[in-house]
Amino acid sequence: MVLDKIKKPNDIKKLSQEELDVLPDEIRQFLIDKLSITGGHLASNLGCVELTMALHLICNLPDDKIIWDVGHQTYTHKILTGRKEGFDSLRTFGGMSGFPKREDSPCDAFNTGHSSTSIAAGLGIAWAREMQHKNNKVISVIGDGALTGGLAWEALNSVAALKKNFVIVLNDNNMSISENVGALSKQLSKMRTSENYRELKGEIQTSLEKIPVYGDRIVAKIRNTKNGIKQLMVPGMIFEEMGIMYLGPVDGHNLNALVSVLHQAVQYDGPVLVHVLTKKGKGFLPAERHPSRFHGTAPFDKEKGLPLKKSGPTYTDIFSTVMRKMGDRDDKVVAITAAMADGTGLKRFRNMFPNRFFDVGIAEEYAVTFAAGLAVSGMKPVFAVYSSFLQRAFDQMIHDVCIQNLHVVFAVDRAGLVGADGDTHQGIFDLSYLSLMPNMVVCAPKNKWELSDMMKFALKYDGPIAIRYPRGAVYAELEDHRQAIELGKAEEIYRESGRVLLFAVGSMVKVAVEVREILAKEGIDVDLTNARFVKPLDVDYLEDAKERYDLIVTMEENVLSGGFGQHVNDVLRNKDYAGEILNIAIPDRFVEHGAVEALLESMEMDAPSVAKRIRNLVGKDREF
Amino acid sequence: MVLDKIKKPNDIKKLSQEELDVLPDEIRQFLIDKLSITGGHLASNLGCVELTMALHLICNLPDDKIIWDVGHQTYTHKILTGRKEGFDSLRTFGGMSGFPKREDSPCDAFNTGHSSTSIAAGLGIAWAREMQHKNNKVISVIGDGALTGGLAWEALNSVAALKKNFVIVLNDNNMSISENVGALSKQLSKMRTSENYRELKGEIQTSLEKIPVYGDRIVAKIRNTKNGIKQLMVPGMIFEEMGIMYLGPVDGHNLNALVSVLHQAVQYDGPVLVHVLTKKGKGFLPAERHPSRFHGTAPFDKEKGLPLKKSGPTYTDIFSTVMRKMGDRDDKVVAITAAMADGTGLKRFRNMFPNRFFDVGIAEEYAVTFAAGLAVSGMKPVFAVYSSFLQRAFDQMIHDVCIQNLHVVFAVDRAGLVGADGDTHQGIFDLSYLSLMPNMVVCAPKNKWELSDMMKFALKYDGPIAIRYPRGAVYAELEDHRQAIELGKAEEIYRESGRVLLFAVGSMVKVAVEVREILAKEGIDVDLTNARFVKPLDVDYLEDAKERYDLIVTMEENVLSGGFGQHVNDVLRNKDYAGEILNIAIPDRFVEHGAVEALLESMEMDAPSVAKRIRNLVGKDREF
Repeated sequence: MVLDKIKKPNDIKKLSQEELDVLPDEIRQFLIDKLSITGGHLASNLGCVELTMALHLICNLPDDKIIWDVGHQTYTHKILTGRKEGFDSLRTFGGMSGFPKREDSPCDAFNTGHSSTSIAAGLGIAWAREMQHKNNKVISVIGDGALTGGLAWEALNSVAALKKNFVIVLNDNNMSISENVGALSKQLSKMRTSENYRELKGEIQTSLEKIPVYGDRIVAKIRNTKNGIKQLMVPGMIFEEMGIMYLGPVDGHNLNALVSVLHQAVQYDGPVLVHVLTKKGKGFLPAERHPSRFHGTAPFDKEKGLPLKKSGPTYTDIFSTVMRKMGDRDDKVVAITAAMADGTGLKRFRNMFPNRFFDVGIAEEYAVTFAAGLAVSGMKPVFAVYSSFLQRAFDQMIHDVCIQNLHVVFAVDRAGLVGADGDTHQGIFDLSYLSLMPNMVVCAPKNKWELSDMMKFALKYDGPIAIRYPRGAVYAELEDHRQAIELGKAEEIYRESGRVLLFAVGSMVKVAVEVREILAKEGIDVDLTNARFVKPLDVDYLEDAKERYDLIVTMEENVLSGGFGQHVNDVLRNKDYAGEILNIAIPDRFVEHGAVEALLESMEMDAPSVAKRIRNLVGKDREF
Repeated sequence: MVLDKIKKPNDIKKLSQEELDVLPDEIRQFLIDKLSITGGHLASNLGCVELTMALHLICNLPDDKIIWDVGHQTYTHKILTGRKEGFDSLRTFGGMSGFPKREDSPCDAFNTGHSSTSIAAGLGIAWAREMQHKNNKVISVIGDGALTGGLAWEALNSVAALKKNFVIVLNDNNMSISENVGALSKQLSKMRTSENYRELKGEIQTSLEKIPVYGDRIVAKIRNTKNGIKQLMVPGMIFEEMGIMYLGPVDGHNLNALVSVLHQAVQYDGPVLVHVLTKKGKGFLPAERHPSRFHGTAPFDKEKGLPLKKSGPTYTDIFSTVMRKMGDRDDKVVAITAAMADGTGLKRFRNMFPNRFFDVGIAEEYAVTFAAGLAVSGMKPVFAVYSSFLQRAFDQMIHDVCIQNLHVVFAVDRAGLVGADGDTHQGIFDLSYLSLMPNMVVCAPKNKWELSDMMKFALKYDGPIAIRYPRGAVYAELEDHRQAIELGKAEEIYRESGRVLLFAVGSMVKVAVEVREILAKEGIDVDLTNARFVKPLDVDYLEDAKERYDLIVTMEENVLSGGFGQHVNDVLRNKDYAGEILNIAIPDRFVEHGAVEALLESMEMDAPSVAKRIRNLVGKDREF
């Protein structure tokens, strides 16, 4: 295996042309083999094998800096920097992260996870290089989807001022996670197909075949050619207008062509964008055909290209069904996604109500302000979005929605711990950042039926309202507990003779049920109330609870700071509650990747740990 | 006075051409007269008098919707919608807001305050119009500065999909608040000056002079002309590439030309951008010459064009001086502003260290991720930014700075209540949204010396750190209290025999001193400690304090939710503090415009109110 010769950074440079020719297939087979067992981001990684190899061939790592936008496409980069063994523990607790991590390798120049950051970070690194009089290469690799994000545009606006070499590799697979959208996408499409461009591409390739080349002369020739036909060259001009030299498009699966064009690019005395055409899922037919399905995949059958086990219905599925029904009942209901029609479950809504469905690209800020515009006009927008991505629209929620007290529904998916994607994707701040916004209502369902009920409530409630629910399989117990949703009202699930109350929100109701069962066996009676609303809190209920209980345990899958527990503490303090409080919440640190169960356990938030913490308090010779 | 005939929306349409000819001068004189007394946004409003008149002439208000980006340029709009009388109370407590407010007038289609929202909101309103089968006009008015914001770009990417009329008026004065920056600015500059464009402009005007016109025919002619010379027309193409018809540039001080081009624009069956050239401060020489000085101005002498009274040094001034010194001492110190070199006090740093100064445009997200890129490379970036605008970069702070635990200094100006600008600009959330970020250090100085000391501390501390300080004049008392800054250490200012502790942070230390004086006269002894750090809190100090005091009063100019007080409460509860707590904080609502003193009083946060609240507690026959 040629792959066995890759043990550390830059080993790839020692390979012969013949070895380089077979390496892509070996890497692809390696990734398919490993990911069929562990799961992970497959399609995007299969798409950029040659591109990553080319970057490693022209770079001197770790001195040169490659910044990977989003970062889930770095598997080949991990292999080529000597981290092949990590794939056995990929994305597991204590194992290798699926994203670039500076703490993992000096070749990981910048941590990523969210979209559209690479040009901005790359410019910071490039300017620092200039100020420090160094001359290392700085290369930001960004997908076409990520270019729709405002942060990428803000950065593009600042690129030209650098006036020194800085390479942006546009990894264009004509698709982010969902299908790509917007005017930019159309422009890129023109660039890909334009007759003029085909000609130009031919010229570039002809030029570049003359290796060894005198870089500057070739680049000058390309420039002249381009200027000469500028009037015909609408495509690419959008970058040229931003003061960035455009090179491409180049076949992203032709290693030699890639090496040649990148070699030119890094020698140019100014910012360059290299437009690389790649195919998601390349080399694995099921992934080529269904790149969305193989974006982030569970373990799968390599032969059939199908998931090994069918998971049960998810909260996303429930949301999807409710949205379809709501859309049917009320033609004012509008659905918005930021490039996640599939992930958020809005595909079915899109198919049924294409005129009331908006995929705005990776543009959460726009999604929220756009929703505010719809809402002032009497529509009922629902923005379905992952908790950690909604952080992008923090100001728009305050400034455009909450100040005007508009009826926008935020369906906050992937709230709480998401597991394998790790620190950048954990949705552990939303209860805090949403609760601090005046006028915002914040709630979370305990099980699948309650998500449905809350969505219906949210579409009736006339103001900003966020429903947060977790990634993964639904909790399908407590079906009998289905009292009507009332604004700011908690739901008592077990009110018996206990002196201990579990006051849990959302996903933690399930954990609380388990805690109660554990403690019941030990003779400790525990009551359980589902908070339902984090804001407004049910202060009347707490008025009652403060008399009944000696220990109130708040439970949330969110940081303590500004979250559910702190607000409950305040209400109880204001009511002169005399008993104990225990806050179960995520501590003040970022939470790494791993199975949700393993993460909960590591933070003493799983049922046995919570039971133990309660047992310790109850045992402290207090009266319970 | 023609102005007297304007009593309600659409009254302008009844004016004769002669009356329209004199109205701009009357409006300008009115604004200069009124603002010389009240202060307010002068330069931008003087710049768009004719543009606003033209919009009102072609619109039927309130059915047609005008969305004003930022919104501080709406004074003429307020006049023309019958709110002339409001200018006597402009931006005062209980008086008229300086920004558009839907609650003020049905002609204010969307509340604004922050930059770059108008295209996104306008698209929401336009799509709602289509879904509701209405045919009102929707017009977003955006400045060239606001176009540098990512949100504007995200929206531009989505404009073409509308395929129906939607007008973007680009109010181009070649300047946002500071001088404009970036590639886009260069493009606009080309559009303004290009020979081809001058010719084209001539053609458009010739066409448009044939009034009454058959709109479609003229527009078709413009389109044809444009296509015919497309190869020459690099300027404007950036919009055309986004699928938006570009019209212009048009003289923004020629009312008839404006009306004509807008008339064409609203009849086109698709999205149109009208490029309008205006001059900031137009008609008032001091403002034309110093538009930055007259952006937001205090009361001024109309004849001399100078402020009526020179205010004392501000926190911004102190920051400015420290930055200059720090830049001198350490060549790794880099300063970043998002279009606020003047407002944040970075102008002097820019003049001394132009190579280490970055004005990134109105692009807070980019500023933060760019800073992260600088920091991973060993530079020491300081991002000076207003508290409410930093909300835009919430995710970038978490994702790009805090996860990597990078040494980025956030100099958070205009924190707490800012006064006259009102709800959109109050910096009342930062202690909460910064405190919830793992790794972030959050502190606030009590007076001018402490700001200087904290800045020096921040540049030594190796991690993310935010210093928040208020708008306006410094507090220059307590000079003797200048203990060295230690991470997470509070500073006891008055520790005597009191049983009551004022535990205040930042600007509230000043209020606390006054509270203490009031209560001392009544024989109530009160101690005072300056918290300095909101995160990490001084838990050791609180361990001590919990024994000494029967009442601990937290004081912060921030919302309660997730802020300073809630964190102090938690520490005290965990330490089984047996006494009382009183949290002085901003309640859970948006805070309107008005003098800071009036606002504090309205929320019972001024010294007499706080003293009264303490007196009430102390009087409750408890032992103090």
